[in-house]
Amino acid sequence: MFCKRILSICNKHLYSIKKYSVIASVLKKPNVGEVAEIKGWIKSLRVQKEYVFADINDGSCAQKLQILIPKHLKTEDLTYGSSVHVTGTLSQSPKGQIELVANNVKVLGPCVVLDGYPFNPRTAHPPEYVRQYLHLRSRTNFISAILRVRNALTRHIHEYFASQNYLHIHTPILTSNDCEGAGEVFKVQPENEETIKTMMQEGKNKDTVYFGRKTYLTVSGQLHLEAICRSMGNVYTLGPTFRAENSRSRLHLSEFYMLEAELAFADSIDTLQYNIEDLLKYIFIKTRETNEADLYVISKDNKEPSWINRDFATITYDEARRILDKKGLVVLDDGINKEQELALVEHCQVPVFIVQWPKNLKSFYMKETPLDDTKVDALDLLAPITGEVVGGSLREDNYDKLKSKLPSDALNWYLELRKFGNIPTGGYGLGLERIMQILCNIPNIKDTLPFPRWPHNCDL
Amino acid sequence: MFCKRILSICNKHLYSIKKYSVIASVLKKPNVGEVAEIKGWIKSLRVQKEYVFADINDGSCAQKLQILIPKHLKTEDLTYGSSVHVTGTLSQSPKGQIELVANNVKVLGPCVVLDGYPFNPRTAHPPEYVRQYLHLRSRTNFISAILRVRNALTRHIHEYFASQNYLHIHTPILTSNDCEGAGEVFKVQPENEETIKTMMQEGKNKDTVYFGRKTYLTVSGQLHLEAICRSMGNVYTLGPTFRAENSRSRLHLSEFYMLEAELAFADSIDTLQYNIEDLLKYIFIKTRETNEADLYVISKDNKEPSWINRDFATITYDEARRILDKKGLVVLDDGINKEQELALVEHCQVPVFIVQWPKNLKSFYMKETPLDDTKVDALDLLAPITGEVVGGSLREDNYDKLKSKLPSDALNWYLELRKFGNIPTGGYGLGLERIMQILCNIPNIKDTLPFPRWPHNCDL
Repeated sequence: MFCKRILSICNKHLYSIKKYSVIASVLKKPNVGEVAEIKGWIKSLRVQKEYVFADINDGSCAQKLQILIPKHLKTEDLTYGSSVHVTGTLSQSPKGQIELVANNVKVLGPCVVLDGYPFNPRTAHPPEYVRQYLHLRSRTNFISAILRVRNALTRHIHEYFASQNYLHIHTPILTSNDCEGAGEVFKVQPENEETIKTMMQEGKNKDTVYFGRKTYLTVSGQLHLEAICRSMGNVYTLGPTFRAENSRSRLHLSEFYMLEAELAFADSIDTLQYNIEDLLKYIFIKTRETNEADLYVISKDNKEPSWINRDFATITYDEARRILDKKGLVVLDDGINKEQELALVEHCQVPVFIVQWPKNLKSFYMKETPLDDTKVDALDLLAPITGEVVGGSLREDNYDKLKSKLPSDALNWYLELRKFGNIPTGGYGLGLERIMQILCNIPNIKDTLPFPRWPHNCDL
Repeated sequence: MFCKRILSICNKHLYSIKKYSVIASVLKKPNVGEVAEIKGWIKSLRVQKEYVFADINDGSCAQKLQILIPKHLKTEDLTYGSSVHVTGTLSQSPKGQIELVANNVKVLGPCVVLDGYPFNPRTAHPPEYVRQYLHLRSRTNFISAILRVRNALTRHIHEYFASQNYLHIHTPILTSNDCEGAGEVFKVQPENEETIKTMMQEGKNKDTVYFGRKTYLTVSGQLHLEAICRSMGNVYTLGPTFRAENSRSRLHLSEFYMLEAELAFADSIDTLQYNIEDLLKYIFIKTRETNEADLYVISKDNKEPSWINRDFATITYDEARRILDKKGLVVLDDGINKEQELALVEHCQVPVFIVQWPKNLKSFYMKETPLDDTKVDALDLLAPITGEVVGGSLREDNYDKLKSKLPSDALNWYLELRKFGNIPTGGYGLGLERIMQILCNIPNIKDTLPFPRWPHNCDL
């Protein structure tokens, strides 16, 4: 990985750093007979005749390393949950399993389970219970596997876009626009009254004093991506977005990660569909390859989804309504609801793109469908477990049409992007946590990220 | 890059997508004599006898592609700043330069410069001027080069940590703790009064109604990283952090990216120093390799820093004071100021770690230096241009000591991390924009990211 030059610059320190091995590396290339040092946490203990058998995990992989501890090395604080530093010799058990025969065991931090430690060995605690202990829950096999999968999924997303020459753009979190216009934004102002006082000007109020205008947490980086796309081509962003909804459903969070891409010179909704399908298949196949053991820990019956080798379906919004009508699920004027989304996926047996949406159900920036000005060239992708998982559209590139639909003068900068060297673009946004739900077969979105935030829950 | 299987799944669409080439690819593997399609923006035009010579850029690289447009294909709207779709044959000029001889030119979007377009061809506009047009400024050579460097720098950071088995953790933006305790936080609440009304409970006020407590934008992901580090080993995060300071200096932003790493089992400040020095050298060397042309656009005299092949220096806080004293720069009780930081770097001629800090100048979570309980095992790394660029420390791992220093009961969860299977850890935080300043030789931090936010500036 590292160029020789860098290694030679820094090898002065190398010895002092390389003091222990991670279990993932030991199991990948086991050198039976060699001395190894391991640092990790005890996941289970079984006292036998001559040895104590301990399973140790260090977070580097789903697998545990079995340690054989001669009984005379067993101390009282060597218990489930304690952190240990073990030195020993790697050996192979009669069954071929790699294990470490300890000659030295040091407890770094004891764990007095009876003093309030919430988890027990070899126990699958229900997610609602585990969620009460956000600061400790990465110590469970389930959540640590989730975090390794999330790490891998994120890496594969960046790999995918880099290989296709997309630029990764850090769009801002603080913004004075509400891209989706739904009013579900959090507002932001300094906590410190002293700061507010020193910045106060006549005619201003507290809400606007710091930035000179009302400022919100972003609901989407799209408008900012569009600005960069109009000079640098294909771009994407992956970062936190926010919704101030009073929703505690299994599909909603107040803070979640969104992957958003904006495609330069996109003049057909097909281009977006191709890109989304290709991306999803790539990250699913890759993550299932790199994190097979983690996915097994998360869900024993997590099989490869049947749709991975099949084409996604595409139907228009009107077709979707007709399909649902026949099932007795009448679509009201405010669009397709969650139950209906899942029924459509069930009907198609693959993820399905809904295209050609009624204009009044979608945002101001979407481009009208050719030949039908009541519709826009938008898409939703519906998938199992979550229903909607991606939303996208071509963007209105006609200056006058966009001007007539612009919800606020504060967006004049966005309009002006169309004035100078404009190009057709389109893009989409994909909820990372919902992808995690589908990939890992997880009903509740709160279990797909390290520190979920939802109404009444922001405790640390 | 892609596994065969994914390609075969999706190649049905492949033809329809591959409609044009990006200039970076054309220049990397030029196929003279072949037909090529390019889409991009005109950066300059020179009308000659038979041809119009146009330089086109599409954002994929710093280089421009020269287009030879036969005069009869020149239309009135083919001007500087317009976006074009050009088809032609790749050829080699007498001087060996790759160029495209056009047989078809279509203007996608005209650019009427006199209608308010702020930039002129072949002009280096001052950064303060360009900064007024955040939505258009990626159209300048300078800012587009910056964004490509930032994209590469980010990629190299992730490569570095992945190669060393660090897990990338998405720490939350919304938090109820103020890690640094300096009170420079932004508070967050829903904008929608209707939402607040429906969630209102007796005894609550508006500030706390949504999450049930006061909620802030994060100033650091450290405390959350520490929680995960205590079960999963080495972890890092790279994402937005916030400071509600009334500072408009060339080194401060209200929203900036911070890279934070937490090292499991770290029991010596040397370990952190090694890791920081190795990381910085790696990302500097790699980015200078991958983005040489961009760095040249940004600053013609951007040479490899002299320190890249040398060891960083280390001095204690007390030594730093003595050095500054001799220079007549007296250090006051509140620590080393910016002028003094830069004087120390000048004195050492390399980036310099300041270690063994007075306890009262540093945060509650830092570990006391062995043998001197007035000092903590903290470090600041000072570098040219910016002064402080990294801050780090070993973390207090003694439960009782930490308890006595805990600033608030709201941090009991953080204290509790020490109770069960505790390990020694240490970590550091590094400002991405300051790294960009040093790497690109940029005086003002506002020019290192796409959409800077600072007091009175959050206009889009």
